Amino acid sequence: MNSVTDLKDRIKSRVTKDLAEIEDALVRNLNPHDDLVRDIAGHVLFAGGKRLRPLLMVLSARLCGYDGDDDKNISVLFEYLHAATLIHDDLVDEAVLRRGKDAAHLRYGNARAVLTGDFLLARSLSLAARTGIPKVIGIIAGITEDMSQGEIRQLTNKGRLDLTEAEYMDVIERKTAVLIRGACRTGALMAGADEEKDRALTDYGYHLGMAFQMADDLLDYTADTLSLGKTIGADLKEGKLTLPIIYALANASEAEKMYIEGMMGKEGVTAQEFRQFTETLERLGGLAYTRNMALAAVARAKNALSMFETGETRDLLSMLADYAMVRQS
Amino acid sequence: MNSVTDLKDRIKSRVTKDLAEIEDALVRNLNPHDDLVRDIAGHVLFAGGKRLRPLLMVLSARLCGYDGDDDKNISVLFEYLHAATLIHDDLVDEAVLRRGKDAAHLRYGNARAVLTGDFLLARSLSLAARTGIPKVIGIIAGITEDMSQGEIRQLTNKGRLDLTEAEYMDVIERKTAVLIRGACRTGALMAGADEEKDRALTDYGYHLGMAFQMADDLLDYTADTLSLGKTIGADLKEGKLTLPIIYALANASEAEKMYIEGMMGKEGVTAQEFRQFTETLERLGGLAYTRNMALAAVARAKNALSMFETGETRDLLSMLADYAMVRQS
Repeated sequence: MNSVTDLKDRIKSRVTKDLAEIEDALVRNLNPHDDLVRDIAGHVLFAGGKRLRPLLMVLSARLCGYDGDDDKNISVLFEYLHAATLIHDDLVDEAVLRRGKDAAHLRYGNARAVLTGDFLLARSLSLAARTGIPKVIGIIAGITEDMSQGEIRQLTNKGRLDLTEAEYMDVIERKTAVLIRGACRTGALMAGADEEKDRALTDYGYHLGMAFQMADDLLDYTADTLSLGKTIGADLKEGKLTLPIIYALANASEAEKMYIEGMMGKEGVTAQEFRQFTETLERLGGLAYTRNMALAAVARAKNALSMFETGETRDLLSMLADYAMVRQS
Repeated sequence: MNSVTDLKDRIKSRVTKDLAEIEDALVRNLNPHDDLVRDIAGHVLFAGGKRLRPLLMVLSARLCGYDGDDDKNISVLFEYLHAATLIHDDLVDEAVLRRGKDAAHLRYGNARAVLTGDFLLARSLSLAARTGIPKVIGIIAGITEDMSQGEIRQLTNKGRLDLTEAEYMDVIERKTAVLIRGACRTGALMAGADEEKDRALTDYGYHLGMAFQMADDLLDYTADTLSLGKTIGADLKEGKLTLPIIYALANASEAEKMYIEGMMGKEGVTAQEFRQFTETLERLGGLAYTRNMALAAVARAKNALSMFETGETRDLLSMLADYAMVRQS
């Protein structure tokens, strides 16, 4: 726990100014015509997100020598895009909590949640247009195409007990990694990076994104609701097959398989039953395997940075990769 | 009726080739990773839309001397964007029918409808990015911002009986006119039109869009379900205050006001009651006023074309403006 707090504090102390400027830019660039839109968007946007995606874009640009002054303004598009998908996904998944507050669709109704998500999505693309770099605009639009299709696939997979690890990796790539990869790559492109640096930061972002989602799927079975800020055991309740279960199923006896399958999507799981379930995942190696796969992705992300000169910015990006694994929420 | 069929046939015979190429481009550029996404998107996209928006872009480009070969590919983004908003709006409005078929959210569920709408929205922005014209990309992103906010405002206005004509015009501008205006303007920009022509086609598209929406709101009280392809009297049922009612209310006695207000959002309105309601709107001048306002917008749209040389393309755009008023669906 202590090393967790240490890493978090070490990162935070070095990005205080960046985060403050990103926060300002988040408010400045929202610009809805309507106060209600600001309220609904703000409900998710200003509920204590970590601003990881904007920060990654800013740091990636800096690592490639960006010296303009529009990086913070552009960077917030990744938070808007992230918030748009959170709002739509929570509605799609019928989630109850988000960032410790009630989900937007419950607070404001499905209709307003859909439309505010649309607005944030459009706002992020307007900002992308502002870069004037067609490649960046294509990336941002492509991210949204990938994410929506990843969610549809995940929806279709729901309840499927024969999902393979490869199918899982494909889903989390679209769901999480494309956005984080896009943020890092946009930073590189804004700085006019050469192809090699562009490729290195694209790789870094991809592996970091995969690590984050695997760590997230692990947290669903290891964290408690309070620190996670969303309902614990939500994946189990929704019948969402993530890596801890996929691995556990592959190593389960027939009796264990029946038990796991019986728990998937079960209504009214008690705390006691949930604990027993996570113990089964642990025993079958599902939690350790997921942790190891995530750690391997972190290592690949850090390795991709090795082509850059050592220094403050590279250190920070490296620390952020480690942070993927140690965060509690 | 005969003149309606005549105008429709006259337009159709001159754009047969364009429409066939647009239809091909709609299939070719959809490109989902997933068959399910293709099915859901296709449910709305290939249910007999008029392709008005792509056609307007293509004709606007041609009027400004466009001689490239990417116009059809780019033009379909306006149909994708239109389909995306139809899917989300039908969900938001809890509509039952669309283009004569059951609405996507009823057929595939809310979740898939939200995500397929997101995909189509993203697809349209990817195509915009392909133009490589930052102004075009900004316009497309701006359209989506406007449309989502227009829908939220309409939602907030629902049930309000004191909506003014100006507020109504603001809603239909965002809801309909910005997209049609954007299609015409994109055509001009793709052709590298000068500022004056850009402005003229922007005006044309704006007034045409306003005319279309007013005519549409009128049709809700004058057409029958079969020819409209969506549920008749839907606006009344949803308690949506459109121009026919706004004008009628302004000219109603206290008793008539109470009657109209009592009918707004009423459950289980019979065909007999609905007929009586439309007769009241007719008697109070609501239908005639809306028709006249729409006709005035058509005249403004046609007037905006006067700066262009006469010829086949200008004639077609002029006929399309007339078509806004005479269509039955």
